Amino acid sequence: MISIITSACSLGEFQVFNFITMLAQSLSAEHSEVTDAKFSNLKTFVYSFKDGDPSNKQLLGGKGANLCAMTRMGINVPPGFVITTEACLSFLADPGRQLPEGLMDQVRAKIFELEQSTGKRFGDPNHPLLVSVRSGSALSMPGMMDTILNLGLSELTLKGLISQTSNERFAYDAFRRLVQLFGKIALNISDEKFDRAMELGLLKASVKSETLLTTAQLQLLCQDYLRIVQEETGKPFPSNAYEQLEIAIRAVFNSWMGKRAIDYRREFKITPDMANGTAVNVVTMVFGNMGEDSATGVGFTRDPGTGEKVMYGEYLINAQGEDVVAGIRTPRAVSNLETDMPEQFRQLQELNKKLELNFKEVQDYEYTIEKGILYCLQTRNGKMNAAALVRSSVEMVRDGLLTRERALLRIKPEILEQLLHPTIDPSLEVKPIAIGLAASPGAATGKVVFDSNRAEVLNRAGENVILVREETRPEDIHGFFAARGVLTSRGGKTSHAAVVARGMGKPCVAGAGTIRIDIKNKQAFAGEVMVREGDYMTIDGSNGNVYLGSLEMVTPVFSQELKTILQWSDEAAGIKVFANADTPEDAAKAAEYGAMGIGLCRTERMFNASERLPIVVDMILAERVEERTAALSSLHQMQKQDFLEILKSMAPRPVTIRLLDPPIHEFLPSEERLTEEIERLRELSRLIRGVHALYGDALSATDQNRQSVAPFNSEGESKVEAMILKKQKMLRKAHELREINPMLGHRGVRLGITQPEIYEMQISAILEAASECRQKGVEVNPEIMVPQVSLAEELINVKQHADTIAEKLEKETGLKPHYRFGTMIEVVRACLHAGELARIGDFFSFGTNDLTQATFSFSREDAENKFLPAYMNSGILKENPFEILDLTGVGKLMKMAVEDGKAANPDLKIGICGEHGGQPRAIAFCYQLGLDYVSCSSPRVPVARLAAAHAAFGKKAQAAL
Amino acid sequence: MISIITSACSLGEFQVFNFITMLAQSLSAEHSEVTDAKFSNLKTFVYSFKDGDPSNKQLLGGKGANLCAMTRMGINVPPGFVITTEACLSFLADPGRQLPEGLMDQVRAKIFELEQSTGKRFGDPNHPLLVSVRSGSALSMPGMMDTILNLGLSELTLKGLISQTSNERFAYDAFRRLVQLFGKIALNISDEKFDRAMELGLLKASVKSETLLTTAQLQLLCQDYLRIVQEETGKPFPSNAYEQLEIAIRAVFNSWMGKRAIDYRREFKITPDMANGTAVNVVTMVFGNMGEDSATGVGFTRDPGTGEKVMYGEYLINAQGEDVVAGIRTPRAVSNLETDMPEQFRQLQELNKKLELNFKEVQDYEYTIEKGILYCLQTRNGKMNAAALVRSSVEMVRDGLLTRERALLRIKPEILEQLLHPTIDPSLEVKPIAIGLAASPGAATGKVVFDSNRAEVLNRAGENVILVREETRPEDIHGFFAARGVLTSRGGKTSHAAVVARGMGKPCVAGAGTIRIDIKNKQAFAGEVMVREGDYMTIDGSNGNVYLGSLEMVTPVFSQELKTILQWSDEAAGIKVFANADTPEDAAKAAEYGAMGIGLCRTERMFNASERLPIVVDMILAERVEERTAALSSLHQMQKQDFLEILKSMAPRPVTIRLLDPPIHEFLPSEERLTEEIERLRELSRLIRGVHALYGDALSATDQNRQSVAPFNSEGESKVEAMILKKQKMLRKAHELREINPMLGHRGVRLGITQPEIYEMQISAILEAASECRQKGVEVNPEIMVPQVSLAEELINVKQHADTIAEKLEKETGLKPHYRFGTMIEVVRACLHAGELARIGDFFSFGTNDLTQATFSFSREDAENKFLPAYMNSGILKENPFEILDLTGVGKLMKMAVEDGKAANPDLKIGICGEHGGQPRAIAFCYQLGLDYVSCSSPRVPVARLAAAHAAFGKKAQAAL
Repeated sequence: MISIITSACSLGEFQVFNFITMLAQSLSAEHSEVTDAKFSNLKTFVYSFKDGDPSNKQLLGGKGANLCAMTRMGINVPPGFVITTEACLSFLADPGRQLPEGLMDQVRAKIFELEQSTGKRFGDPNHPLLVSVRSGSALSMPGMMDTILNLGLSELTLKGLISQTSNERFAYDAFRRLVQLFGKIALNISDEKFDRAMELGLLKASVKSETLLTTAQLQLLCQDYLRIVQEETGKPFPSNAYEQLEIAIRAVFNSWMGKRAIDYRREFKITPDMANGTAVNVVTMVFGNMGEDSATGVGFTRDPGTGEKVMYGEYLINAQGEDVVAGIRTPRAVSNLETDMPEQFRQLQELNKKLELNFKEVQDYEYTIEKGILYCLQTRNGKMNAAALVRSSVEMVRDGLLTRERALLRIKPEILEQLLHPTIDPSLEVKPIAIGLAASPGAATGKVVFDSNRAEVLNRAGENVILVREETRPEDIHGFFAARGVLTSRGGKTSHAAVVARGMGKPCVAGAGTIRIDIKNKQAFAGEVMVREGDYMTIDGSNGNVYLGSLEMVTPVFSQELKTILQWSDEAAGIKVFANADTPEDAAKAAEYGAMGIGLCRTERMFNASERLPIVVDMILAERVEERTAALSSLHQMQKQDFLEILKSMAPRPVTIRLLDPPIHEFLPSEERLTEEIERLRELSRLIRGVHALYGDALSATDQNRQSVAPFNSEGESKVEAMILKKQKMLRKAHELREINPMLGHRGVRLGITQPEIYEMQISAILEAASECRQKGVEVNPEIMVPQVSLAEELINVKQHADTIAEKLEKETGLKPHYRFGTMIEVVRACLHAGELARIGDFFSFGTNDLTQATFSFSREDAENKFLPAYMNSGILKENPFEILDLTGVGKLMKMAVEDGKAANPDLKIGICGEHGGQPRAIAFCYQLGLDYVSCSSPRVPVARLAAAHAAFGKKAQAAL
Repeated sequence: MISIITSACSLGEFQVFNFITMLAQSLSAEHSEVTDAKFSNLKTFVYSFKDGDPSNKQLLGGKGANLCAMTRMGINVPPGFVITTEACLSFLADPGRQLPEGLMDQVRAKIFELEQSTGKRFGDPNHPLLVSVRSGSALSMPGMMDTILNLGLSELTLKGLISQTSNERFAYDAFRRLVQLFGKIALNISDEKFDRAMELGLLKASVKSETLLTTAQLQLLCQDYLRIVQEETGKPFPSNAYEQLEIAIRAVFNSWMGKRAIDYRREFKITPDMANGTAVNVVTMVFGNMGEDSATGVGFTRDPGTGEKVMYGEYLINAQGEDVVAGIRTPRAVSNLETDMPEQFRQLQELNKKLELNFKEVQDYEYTIEKGILYCLQTRNGKMNAAALVRSSVEMVRDGLLTRERALLRIKPEILEQLLHPTIDPSLEVKPIAIGLAASPGAATGKVVFDSNRAEVLNRAGENVILVREETRPEDIHGFFAARGVLTSRGGKTSHAAVVARGMGKPCVAGAGTIRIDIKNKQAFAGEVMVREGDYMTIDGSNGNVYLGSLEMVTPVFSQELKTILQWSDEAAGIKVFANADTPEDAAKAAEYGAMGIGLCRTERMFNASERLPIVVDMILAERVEERTAALSSLHQMQKQDFLEILKSMAPRPVTIRLLDPPIHEFLPSEERLTEEIERLRELSRLIRGVHALYGDALSATDQNRQSVAPFNSEGESKVEAMILKKQKMLRKAHELREINPMLGHRGVRLGITQPEIYEMQISAILEAASECRQKGVEVNPEIMVPQVSLAEELINVKQHADTIAEKLEKETGLKPHYRFGTMIEVVRACLHAGELARIGDFFSFGTNDLTQATFSFSREDAENKFLPAYMNSGILKENPFEILDLTGVGKLMKMAVEDGKAANPDLKIGICGEHGGQPRAIAFCYQLGLDYVSCSSPRVPVARLAAAHAAFGKKAQAAL
């Protein structure tokens, strides 16, 4: 059954209908032994609150189940009953939309019970029983359907209500509300009609608010409303209470397949197995507007903004529930109730306690005080922000309300990210000028600059800057360091900009395609809006929004409660959480976030630092061995220093260092850029020659102003000529190295094999750094990781180099180098030959970014810019596989690799270091596969730690079934 | 054991040694029950020719086994014996390199037998027995080791030989040869030493050839040779015959692990299970130089050049074997022997017959006539060219010598390609000026042109041209049509140039990186050689060679024998052979080559035709729906016409039409090119304005010369301006469409989904064409194939479009469209979800080109230009996976897909249309997987047909085991 249900969730409306029919038929088949009827009349479709099983939300809906629960707990809930979701499905499955047989009989029986307990009668002109009717499915869908209040009122029973309450105005107001709500919800009359009548009434009465209408004026309004119903439906407003009730029940049932509900379910991905059909709650009306001893209010058992354990909420004396929401009168904070109604305040405190004790969750409830008597009308789990969830979780465990497991499970891991990045003050209401991809979370504000050099200059001058470019390249690295955030108009979530920004923990909005950037004139256009260099801009990398101006920020705090939650998570988890960190600074941040090791240290980042890039370029351009060796030996010293610091800062935790991965042309500027630069230099050269020709003698005459005129003498000229020559050399090299599909090109181990000196340099630097640490008594654990391996022979080749280097080092130091050697698993073929690879290396680390690209044959950057959005919109893809791990494709390959790898080498350590490593569903999958660790960017580490605990709980829960 | 053996073949020399030790130990272990000795002295290491089992080549080596066979057949072979390969392995496995125990005893016993049958004695000063010693492994390794002749001669026995032969000069010459051969082969003395002594001897004697030396001079030379041996080895030349023999045996054994042999085995991929160790053949010497009744010769049982059944070979009277090879005297054709020695000629005819009857194969044999007696000294299978193999196969079946199966199996499928392409006259000895990739087989000669327009012009003028470019693009397509062959300096075997050329069956050399092309100045440089437009060039796409000048060609003939062979193949094969064909012309060619259908018709080729490309460009640039629709409807008509012709020409065979695959930016010129063109147009515009300004009035004055001056009046100007605008639009579009990894980009079904009108147009065109054919009574079978599918939802999406179009057409024509719908399997994920896809489509076609790229994460063009050569050289890859299907990686995915696909849809038709479809090993694999067909380029069809038969025989053979 579950599989049928799941398969339906991807279908359109029509299919859903068919599906429900099928479901109902299968349900009916299950019961066919008892009776021939489609649904047996022996079946219970209606439960009193005192009888319903509070744990059965699927049947009673969330609201109904909670009303049953409260009734059982002895909380004063107005008497009422629930019509089940089964009744709803049966109704929807019937082509003639008949209510299931026997349903209305059962309803009548329950109404009879209400009459007994209230002493009123449904439809009785003297003592009318009034009820509210509202929907409620298994999963909360707030605002999905309005409640019909005061059902049972009619011109007939109105008098009874007047005599009951001795309040004519109240009674007419109640009737007016019923006609409007019933007309709108049950009879599908447009709200507008009633609103216009109301406006007219107010005009006639010359008042501004309906509360100021007199009884007579309300009476006239009621007549208008009833006329509207007659006009719109061709029938008079139903005066029979049961007729009203049946129409209302049908309306609620029908609302389940209404556009609004379907859209909502699609939007929030509510599948039939999560909430199938809606229940109907029928509740005796109570009134908070029966005088000064009456009131209505809403409350939280804890402060939903902070999680603090205090009563929280507000109320209005002598008002109806909707008045609190409508905001016509300003509600009072609940603390005032202690003065206003001390006894009821005490009762409310009691209610608070009872609710949390029972529901083990912060509750968001509604109540009404009718003539001094407190009724609780509904309760549900309170929605809270991340900080409040964290604090209340910790405190509820301390209070003995929750186990640690439940406390952790109530926090969705992703929500923790809110706590770790600056965010734009949520109270601000500003419209973005553009929306790009949420490429690196957090918000940043600063002055716009269009090139990295300028960013550096302004940053040194103490300015906050936002680097704005079409796309970034390795040579922009100093711009990243200088900027608070980065915005690009091209490129996806793994574009250079996105990856580098995430690595640095800086906000980034990538691929904001509607922004047109005009680098030359230092300006950009977002539609009509022009942004010049120096203008303030704010970007939000958590949602991709781009704003003009400098918006107010909220800065995160790593609270004690969060630390507690994460510590508990670590204790519960069955898979470790490592961080991706490329520099000593990153490593320090990773440690701060609680990373248990570094799962991916990308050495190319070290190559990109602005003082190193020229050396890398020299290495690339080197024509003679000596030039090459010189460049490599400079890099060797720098890398060694980096490794020393990273290893030390994580000691004794493992640090997995990936040997150079990108194709080397990535270290050269683009051909376009070089061509442009050469052109500019040539112009400069012409200029110098011109100046020289005119002022040559003067320039060489005085030695004094030599310095100031240097650029214009022959020395300057030859300098420029040398630069031109170098740039030309770079251009030739860039052309030579150009690749058609660099993602599948000359990179990773392929580079390591064809130019072994680079890997040799890196391996030496790692082992030497580790050796130095160990000589100083610091226990460090480097792991050397080879990228892009597709053939066992590649791994063997690099391992032989590593072995040779280790042997040499051992001879020199007398100390046996201590390291692990392993491979990324990011090429499909590596998954298919995992057994072989596992016999060569000590560990695997899944690079699911590249693996996903190869499995789908999707180049991520091209896909996200070109066709993935269309795929998502049309439903061809449910999720972006670069964000949500593709379990049946990529996951299948991973499973094969894990099984073959472990079979060949039971000691094999396995992790994941792709972007998915920080994604909860992927973490659960990795845990199930038996991986040892996941590695993700530092700010995702807390999310991953909590997700790891969830994964362990999930497996436990599964095992318990 | 086999698996151990196979695994060793990828190891270095040292490992091979260890491996042999292991092997020997395991062999010894197998026999340990019999005796404790490493090799039992009961073991037979030596077999007389009359005793050895001719079928055991592994033990006796090929040469030895054949000598045994001939002896058994009653052919007059000089008596002798074989020392087994086992003895060799045992010797090599022994760390002290001891001959196996008992070996020399057995040798002595066999020598005794020789002495008995010849009446001579080994080492006897009066009647010395002389032998030759030569190596012989299971697989022929010609030239691997020289033969030692005349062993047993020494200063002692020399006199005996003189008195035996009464020919002193002959005896000294024999001795001289022994000392030299023995010195070189058994004692490792450099040939140079002996050569220098010989030169000196000739100088002293004032003669030019050794044949002119007198006995005395030869005697002196012998002294010199003996002195060389003494000097080089520190020991005198061994005079004891057995000592000579033992040294010679050791030398042969050692030669197995010599550099030359190891290199040879690596080069020819001879693995230990194919030939493990060498045997030693010891044969009684016979002499062809004993007078005019003696001779020596070589022969083939059929003409190896044509396959004709005639005696073929040559001989020399009164000569030794090596004299035939040395070429000092000109040998006579064997036909003359009938006159020279009629009796022996008759015997030779008899020998011919006997050999073929026994070996069921054309034989290449050596013989000696000693004093009128014919001895056959060795025989082996004759190496023949393709034509000879084909002819002899057919004739040997007719003669009852071979079954059809054996006749087919003796032809290596690849060799057939020789018969289908023009080749450079093999008798020419010319050095190539450059070597590129053999991208499309065949040779072509013509005038060099550097651009496609020029190629068209010259071709129209009747010139043969070779199109030379850095790389080609779709806009070069008319250049391909115009050229005889294509040469590029960049790009691999799947570069645009290579693929298009192969599709057209035109020769192509791609990626000839040493050629520097200077388009601007219409010249190219291959090292020092400069090639200008109009110079003659010859390219050979079968080996990648590029020659200056116009070389003589040999044109192929599709012989009757070849047709017979292919017909037999089809009858035996268990898998069909389709062709890849993109145009009606291609389809006709495919039919000619015997294709049983079209497995891949690439519709983008049709887009590229020069009259269509502008329409495609209009479609791409279209901003309004009407523009787009107009372009599409033009294309629709053209495609429909193409499909009509292709379907008809193959009717009723299936034609698999692939919907558009490449990213659309491939139909636009490159950004560089557009920028350049715009620049040129701007210059032209300036020029026009200039001319106009100067001569404006004059130009507009006369209407008569309007035509001739049109480019220079305002009309011309506005035309140029319009062109500039268009090119600018194209440039913007090209920039917008630019992709980082186009191979993994917006192409195939991704394009089909985001721009459904293209696929709709193509599907309509296919179905309408088929419908028209059927209305005319022509039974056609179109199959619509969707490329790049990774998700079931993609295939569903396109299928829904196809269904809708088919329904509409059925309504219009009243005829139900008849077609199959299926998918390429070229994305890894498709292999992992094959079951799902098989439920949607009717057929699969493996696109192993893309699948290989994705499985290895190798971009083919980048790989072949950047790192694959290094991988192959260093042995990291044994084979280029783009040429030889990677069975354990790509093949594993294919296997999964076939199994899942067939399980989900037992009627699923499966084929392969990647480049591997024409590769014999892949064909065998596909056959084993149960595929229905392979599809390859037309000229590969004959190869594939034969390979398909081989595959079936292979399975039969395996089943028989």
